[in-house]
Amino acid sequence: MYENPKEVRDLIRRGELVRPTSGLAPGYTQANLVILPKEVAFDFFLFCQRNPKPCPVLEVMEPGKYEPVLMAPGADLRVDVSLYRIYKDGKLVAEEREITSYWTSQLVCFLLGCSFTFEAALIRAGIPLRHIAEGKNVAMYETSIKAVPAGIFSGPVVVSMRPIHETKVVRSIQVTSRFPLVHGAPLHIGDPEKIGIKDIKHPEYGDYVDIMEDEVPVFWACGVTPQAVALKSRLPFMITHSPGHMFITDVLDEELAAL
Amino acid sequence: MYENPKEVRDLIRRGELVRPTSGLAPGYTQANLVILPKEVAFDFFLFCQRNPKPCPVLEVMEPGKYEPVLMAPGADLRVDVSLYRIYKDGKLVAEEREITSYWTSQLVCFLLGCSFTFEAALIRAGIPLRHIAEGKNVAMYETSIKAVPAGIFSGPVVVSMRPIHETKVVRSIQVTSRFPLVHGAPLHIGDPEKIGIKDIKHPEYGDYVDIMEDEVPVFWACGVTPQAVALKSRLPFMITHSPGHMFITDVLDEELAAL
Repeated sequence: MYENPKEVRDLIRRGELVRPTSGLAPGYTQANLVILPKEVAFDFFLFCQRNPKPCPVLEVMEPGKYEPVLMAPGADLRVDVSLYRIYKDGKLVAEEREITSYWTSQLVCFLLGCSFTFEAALIRAGIPLRHIAEGKNVAMYETSIKAVPAGIFSGPVVVSMRPIHETKVVRSIQVTSRFPLVHGAPLHIGDPEKIGIKDIKHPEYGDYVDIMEDEVPVFWACGVTPQAVALKSRLPFMITHSPGHMFITDVLDEELAAL
Repeated sequence: MYENPKEVRDLIRRGELVRPTSGLAPGYTQANLVILPKEVAFDFFLFCQRNPKPCPVLEVMEPGKYEPVLMAPGADLRVDVSLYRIYKDGKLVAEEREITSYWTSQLVCFLLGCSFTFEAALIRAGIPLRHIAEGKNVAMYETSIKAVPAGIFSGPVVVSMRPIHETKVVRSIQVTSRFPLVHGAPLHIGDPEKIGIKDIKHPEYGDYVDIMEDEVPVFWACGVTPQAVALKSRLPFMITHSPGHMFITDVLDEELAAL
């Protein structure tokens, strides 16, 4: 059950499935959702284009449109995510099951790539991921790497860290390089201090997992980056999915592979 | 001579070098330039994002900005192309050495990938290109493939055709797949009619070259597509480079390779 992306979205739409989407519709791409006022959408689009590793654009809709006709025709981004967060002036003001009452023709929807796709590829390649084995959220850190600014948007790149066995590091780079639309190759391998991470045991977001003697911490650009940057710019209004409650598309992970 | 991209741009800026840029600053990426009013820039950006093969975005500038800080810091897109075309209401009205007198804070510059980069890679891989050997412009055709529309922009995908020896077709796909930011892998191989090309000997743009018995016509998405689509939409105002007079960046072709 929960194999077919359209069926899963229908259950979510009817309010019969309100849970994090990890593991649902396996093999299909899940996406981060960011909804912004039209006035700042061009700048945000620029920010994503200039920072494709943390902000890989899967689909952008015209102002007022909520159907992602390329990634999931027939879907409705106002009701097909199981939990939404509403931000005003950079502050979380509500968490909602659906957002039709907030919708206006002045809003622009962005679907951005999510690490679930490359994690599935790593697991298929025989590279285990500890946070999944332990049922935790991945550990995420603010770095000293500055995103390329665009218009009103600027801030640090956020990375996720996965401990990889030293014999699998090269393979983990090869596997994730195939998926540039879902963060792609790592940003950094090894010493956390080189990218400004002072205390690896205390991530800014998510949960720490142990790094064993024969493992290397590998850091990928993280989809939290655009949300953190948007929040920091204190936009008057923004809607996102709630953490873990992604939008499920009709596109197979393998369809996103570069090669 | 003409090896260093900045030196070549300086000569162009001073009006001392007004010629097609093929062969200048070899190894460095050259780009298509499209300049549009701010009101339509979001839609055009969307069109490019939805059609990455014909419209690969290298850099977009904020409204009013003419320095491509990522691809060529210090350059000025108003004077560093040797010949510009000015369009009003979808009609060519002037060809100019520089465009400072047309410039306003309401214009947005787009740099899009150009086939020179992947042609250089094909030649390095031992795959000769007849149009270059014969000193011709590449043959370009309108196809029956519709670009994904975005806002006011819609139209057919334009392709370029290169005859490739039947033993080199696979290699030509591998080589160009490495360069998704400059049109990437072919759109079609073989029978021109399958993509709506009725008369291969009469291209819509450029010059026909012979296809020998042991060669296969291979079709790549072409950077003429966004300009043709923009023209068709009869924008009140648009500026582009003149054909062949590309913008020369400081980025090495190999820096654009995906893998």
